[in-house]
Amino acid sequence: MTEAIGSAASARVAWIAGVGASAGLGAALARRFAREGLRVAVTARSRERLDAIVDEIRRAGGQAYALPADVTSESELAEIARQLADHGTLEVAIFNAAGMTRGPTLELSAAEFEAAWRVTTLGGFLFARASLPALLAAGRGSLLFTGATASLRGRPPFAAFAAAKAGLRSLTQSLAREFGPRNIHVAHVVVDGGIDGERLRASAPQYVAERGADGLLNPDDIADAYWHLHQQPRSAWSQEIDLRPYNESF
Amino acid sequence: MTEAIGSAASARVAWIAGVGASAGLGAALARRFAREGLRVAVTARSRERLDAIVDEIRRAGGQAYALPADVTSESELAEIARQLADHGTLEVAIFNAAGMTRGPTLELSAAEFEAAWRVTTLGGFLFARASLPALLAAGRGSLLFTGATASLRGRPPFAAFAAAKAGLRSLTQSLAREFGPRNIHVAHVVVDGGIDGERLRASAPQYVAERGADGLLNPDDIADAYWHLHQQPRSAWSQEIDLRPYNESF
Amino acid sequence: MTEAIGSAASARVAWIAGVGASAGLGAALARRFAREGLRVAVTARSRERLDAIVDEIRRAGGQAYALPADVTSESELAEIARQLADHGTLEVAIFNAAGMTRGPTLELSAAEFEAAWRVTTLGGFLFARASLPALLAAGRGSLLFTGATASLRGRPPFAAFAAAKAGLRSLTQSLAREFGPRNIHVAHVVVDGGIDGERLRASAPQYVAERGADGLLNPDDIADAYWHLHQQPRSAWSQEIDLRPYNESF
Amino acid sequence: MTEAIGSAASARVAWIAGVGASAGLGAALARRFAREGLRVAVTARSRERLDAIVDEIRRAGGQAYALPADVTSESELAEIARQLADHGTLEVAIFNAAGMTRGPTLELSAAEFEAAWRVTTLGGFLFARASLPALLAAGRGSLLFTGATASLRGRPPFAAFAAAKAGLRSLTQSLAREFGPRNIHVAHVVVDGGIDGERLRASAPQYVAERGADGLLNPDDIADAYWHLHQQPRSAWSQEIDLRPYNESF
Repeated sequence: MTEAIGSAASARVAWIAGVGASAGLGAALARRFAREGLRVAVTARSRERLDAIVDEIRRAGGQAYALPADVTSESELAEIARQLADHGTLEVAIFNAAGMTRGPTLELSAAEFEAAWRVTTLGGFLFARASLPALLAAGRGSLLFTGATASLRGRPPFAAFAAAKAGLRSLTQSLAREFGPRNIHVAHVVVDGGIDGERLRASAPQYVAERGADGLLNPDDIADAYWHLHQQPRSAWSQEIDLRPYNESF
Repeated sequence: MTEAIGSAASARVAWIAGVGASAGLGAALARRFAREGLRVAVTARSRERLDAIVDEIRRAGGQAYALPADVTSESELAEIARQLADHGTLEVAIFNAAGMTRGPTLELSAAEFEAAWRVTTLGGFLFARASLPALLAAGRGSLLFTGATASLRGRPPFAAFAAAKAGLRSLTQSLAREFGPRNIHVAHVVVDGGIDGERLRASAPQYVAERGADGLLNPDDIADAYWHLHQQPRSAWSQEIDLRPYNESF
Repeated sequence: MTEAIGSAASARVAWIAGVGASAGLGAALARRFAREGLRVAVTARSRERLDAIVDEIRRAGGQAYALPADVTSESELAEIARQLADHGTLEVAIFNAAGMTRGPTLELSAAEFEAAWRVTTLGGFLFARASLPALLAAGRGSLLFTGATASLRGRPPFAAFAAAKAGLRSLTQSLAREFGPRNIHVAHVVVDGGIDGERLRASAPQYVAERGADGLLNPDDIADAYWHLHQQPRSAWSQEIDLRPYNESF
Repeated sequence: MTEAIGSAASARVAWIAGVGASAGLGAALARRFAREGLRVAVTARSRERLDAIVDEIRRAGGQAYALPADVTSESELAEIARQLADHGTLEVAIFNAAGMTRGPTLELSAAEFEAAWRVTTLGGFLFARASLPALLAAGRGSLLFTGATASLRGRPPFAAFAAAKAGLRSLTQSLAREFGPRNIHVAHVVVDGGIDGERLRASAPQYVAERGADGLLNPDDIADAYWHLHQQPRSAWSQEIDLRPYNESF
């Protein structure tokens, strides 16, 4: 920890939604902000996975809390926002959840198309609405969103995922324009490439091998970029940055 | 009518969803494609408004049918697609529906955010899925979507509308990439500016006056652009065009 | 010819710069606008090629004039603009010239980088300045520019060509915003894909074969799109359209 | 200085072109990279201004060198590149020069249009070609470019400046795609808003007053972003970031 962690009254809080496998981006974000001395509240549906990363952070001397919720539930997010107030002052809120769906467009069901939007776009909207009151009350803070290659263009077999991610990106632009002047830094990170982690190593081992060292996005390196965004002075805020491996074709 | 209208077996059919006031874009599209000799099936929730434009087209010697449905209902759209088969060969399908919502983002309810998406983005997806089988069976055809300024960037007080329109735009890109090689022309029209019509004249009369002659988008002129898109030979298809009045600031 | 051609006083004039091989886009544009009854003035450095297309148009009953010039020469373009006034009223001006250069970026010489810009971007600027006074004097008209895939993004081995095309695209946006309100329709056509013609058939025969029927952009079909842009009523002008074959990957 | 500065053999070198007033971005970049222990070589046409920032850096304990040159001169940049080799290993090269021109498009002379391109776009190309051999020889490094609002769209009265900046942006994309896989980080910074400094305070004092505290981009804050880009690990490089004040309208 780079600084002492004080009482709840003075504690700085980071809220991160979309935290899954310990090797994933959500967990890396939690570790990164905890390492900087923030109390990290992590949210996702699976309490088991949240507990794993919380335990890890605590063992490393940091403060973390598992606040399980479904990001598509307005009431559950509102309840967490209330609980956060007891932990300190919300300083940064990160929305990292996404509903990935793939398939030929005619084979995507309406339910699949909706599920991708519900987690990715509606979730981002509900998360923004749940976290903004505390950020506005504090008079400052960051509201960061995870984007993807698909945020920028639609392409099969990702029609549902891309439409949801494009909607989220648009939302971050509206939020930035509306809340920037109120001292809330809203930014969108276009993660363009495969993220190194369990999921990709299990689902596409050959692709992982072919990419070579540093050919996949390292979650810790992505998390650094989020931390840097949060540190930017308000005279020079980024609204959107892209991140990709050095040897990614784009 | 520019050509004789034959029997159902040989009739060319246009399906247009999102048809409202007779002075609006949906009605103008219906008139335009009817004038070219297509049987026009118009869809929206209000049978009354559909009947008005259908009557007008028939009085002018064209063929039109009111097929009321909620574009957010997969089953209702599927039922219409079945009925269309009796009318002839589907040649062009146009999705012109949109759920407009405005307001400060923190005052938009989850229900409003969802409603905008449901009509605009999900509606577009369901409409594409309902119409593509007939187009693919015919081996050719056009699938056209109405976009807006908000399709390209999010801006308050249009956070919900813009997110939905951005999602729809992304969807059209996925569809174009997937179905273009199967001979279906998928295009997105960015209507950038106010459309001249009852709605704007009632809600913003001063704005309408200030724009001057041709300072608002004429629905018939927009409809011409859709017809032109439909006529493009497949060696040179547009995926996206913008349309705005000559004196629009952009 | 679709209409009678009157005296110089009432004649409608189209000026097209960047006219080369008779199978190319420039020649197709000349034919298309001549077919609509306009007197077509064609400009490029090679008088021989200009004469070929002029002869062809005249044999078909149209009016055409070869006005050779270097589009990178302000004085030569100004001289042509003066000559055009004797032929009638300038109604549409099309800039179709481009300086194509390719190669690994470190192997492009400064001279090559400059040559690409000089023909493509500076040429577009000089052409706009030479044609706008006549268009403004007429109180209406179109100023159209040919873009390419490279207009939208830089990619090796096209660093020089793409930078030049991106500059031209930006210029068309400035011109559209400045002269649209003065009733001049400025539009940019993103030609995305290979154009069918001598050049491609000679340089990449296997690619041409693989693309199949309609897999390359037909110059006549592109020219149709320019004509349509010129015909758009000013309540609904396009500033940018893309064009690509139905089976193009993008 | 955060670390000891060694001999030339081991010295890390930063080369920054486009360094003017001590209150400007070029000078801030020089200070920032010097503060991190790099030997900073600054280039611009005015030796006087270069000497001022070099003296300032040296008084603060850093290492800096004035290497005056015209960025539009291939031979002068090549000569500097040769001199740099004596100072150590080139690690980062920053192109911050730009040729600003404004005016109604019909009043811009060909010479003004060319001058904007020559400094902004050709300068960027020549600077890349002069610095890349050393970066490639080192096997790693960063090549960073300053962009502007105008990089993203053309708008009067900035037709010349915007066309040049759009060309530069395209060039950075080509360079990133070509040299990223060779371990050179090429990035483009879209500086969107007014930069606080002498120029703006002199030319638009009322605008500066209205913007309020932090309402203009602080050059030191912009320089931080460049430093961060240079520090990014190659598994997660940004190709483009934007920077604007918190209360900027965009």
